Amino acid sequence: MADNSWDRPLTLAEVAAAAGVSVPTVSKVINQRSDVAPATRERVQRVLAERGYVVNRAGRSLRQGKSRQIDVISQDLDSYYAFQILRGIQDALLATDLRAVLASTHDHRRRELQWIQRLADGSTDGAILILADHTSLHLQELRRRAIPFVVVDPAGELGPDDLSVTATNWAGAKAATDHLLALGHRRIAALLGPPDFAATRARLGGYRAALLEAGLPFDARLVRHGDWQAERAAVETGELLALPDPPTAIFAGNDQQALGVYRALWRRDLRVPDDLSVVGFDDLPYAALVTPALTTVRQPLLEMGRVATTMLLRLMAGEPVDSVRVELATPLIARESCAASRRQV
Amino acid sequence: MADNSWDRPLTLAEVAAAAGVSVPTVSKVINQRSDVAPATRERVQRVLAERGYVVNRAGRSLRQGKSRQIDVISQDLDSYYAFQILRGIQDALLATDLRAVLASTHDHRRRELQWIQRLADGSTDGAILILADHTSLHLQELRRRAIPFVVVDPAGELGPDDLSVTATNWAGAKAATDHLLALGHRRIAALLGPPDFAATRARLGGYRAALLEAGLPFDARLVRHGDWQAERAAVETGELLALPDPPTAIFAGNDQQALGVYRALWRRDLRVPDDLSVVGFDDLPYAALVTPALTTVRQPLLEMGRVATTMLLRLMAGEPVDSVRVELATPLIARESCAASRRQV
Repeated sequence: MADNSWDRPLTLAEVAAAAGVSVPTVSKVINQRSDVAPATRERVQRVLAERGYVVNRAGRSLRQGKSRQIDVISQDLDSYYAFQILRGIQDALLATDLRAVLASTHDHRRRELQWIQRLADGSTDGAILILADHTSLHLQELRRRAIPFVVVDPAGELGPDDLSVTATNWAGAKAATDHLLALGHRRIAALLGPPDFAATRARLGGYRAALLEAGLPFDARLVRHGDWQAERAAVETGELLALPDPPTAIFAGNDQQALGVYRALWRRDLRVPDDLSVVGFDDLPYAALVTPALTTVRQPLLEMGRVATTMLLRLMAGEPVDSVRVELATPLIARESCAASRRQV
Repeated sequence: MADNSWDRPLTLAEVAAAAGVSVPTVSKVINQRSDVAPATRERVQRVLAERGYVVNRAGRSLRQGKSRQIDVISQDLDSYYAFQILRGIQDALLATDLRAVLASTHDHRRRELQWIQRLADGSTDGAILILADHTSLHLQELRRRAIPFVVVDPAGELGPDDLSVTATNWAGAKAATDHLLALGHRRIAALLGPPDFAATRARLGGYRAALLEAGLPFDARLVRHGDWQAERAAVETGELLALPDPPTAIFAGNDQQALGVYRALWRRDLRVPDDLSVVGFDDLPYAALVTPALTTVRQPLLEMGRVATTMLLRLMAGEPVDSVRVELATPLIARESCAASRRQV
């Protein structure tokens, strides 16, 4: 039975249904809170035990005054992207007695073992995962031990009860494309991230919706999938510029890819935005530092970290959350990398 | 007496001298290690107690198996600079059972109180401070409680026994200036950080040494002190370009200031490196992403974090360190932002 629960984790809702209680009550029992009737607690614990869940984690203590901790888990804590999310998490923890512990999974074997050891020690009270999806081993371990977690910017599918925070990728991409359309551009390319990312699919959708709304045809030759990196984006840009009817503007999947567009133009002695307009996505700190300063869609990474932490704290306290999935707004930050299309005006 | 020790902290060497033992022995006693003769331990503890030091911190435990933690303290954990150091610290802790806890002092009142509370709880086994100097309250508190610490990139003076890790700022600045001299530049400006930073003074020294070695006069009008930010650097660059005999190259105090130089040129429709060569300092990830890619002096931030952690671990274990001050090499990374001086060649 334990093996089965590993493969297909039990959701809080399933436990609640099986025990005939509400989801917050299950959470309360898991968090060893005292405000649950003994009979109810026993019923929930029985359901959990039957499915191989570990309820009484050794050493775990949630009493006031004792410092507690949450794990921040990311395959790539090295990136500025993850760093910004981490800052938001730190911000939200300021007012609490909780500490964030970084658990990058970059060095897989060693880190994972250490981390699971720590889970077994009961020293983790909750977790925030960055870019995880349902295949994540970490997520499965957390579920098995009924440790509350929230996923920031999930890379793919999650369970129906899993909490997540993401940016309005579709709306952000639509706003970026609308901005270029308003400047008179009609040949607008999209230089996106890998297609297996949920964010990429949502951004492609927003781009297509803007074109559709403007009555423009969708040209598959203008859509490229890169690897989020600048160098590959520079190569893709070169290929786009070599088309018989090249784009006059590019919507890039992230700021690094936008800088790849800059590089491709610089190599050809062309200029942004005179020869080509560019919009990025993320608004990492260097977007404002480069010349021309990058017009980009701000992904509220800091806020995403902050909101994820607030949701996690509620979950840990057994309080209800407003929504299992929260999308935060992505404003367009207009700077210097877009100009009116000379071909159209 | 306690008040006095707050104002002028006791050094490990002073305790060792007063107790007639070696510095590692003092460290062993502080770390409650068992391999110290009882009489020796008592002597050291008496000296510490006389000076108001807290030796037996409640709840402290250094036995194997119990997870321990070190604090990372910085006024500005938000910056990419501090983030890179943090990554190095995390790397070095991978092989240990220690965890890093971030204790940014950005939000002064709340954070400091929390932090001191945690010290009192005995939950901190060591600390790494970024950019601290002898005026740091944190540093004073750590000394008072005899908690081992290492300072990364000290902003100013430290005590003679305080461990620190820094970059070879002098040599890095000299290499940067030498690089420009080798390209035929003779009017080389230095656009540095605030003069009260130890790093700024060392970099100014390296710049001057290179000029001296090349037999060039030092022109005070070519040296500017900014605030490490791009915008101010852009203004300073404008002023330098307006000089009767303007520079043909600029050595910038950090990568952000170098991007300020880029901006000043872009505003004037001038080009890097055709119209002005630029060298930065730090080699933050965006240095390679911008166009032209920035030639810069690599500050080994990651390695600095790693080495500081290794030193701290030795100190915590009562083992001798090779040197109280370690300087790590700063290689020049030649990219695209420097060209031969047209005025000289």
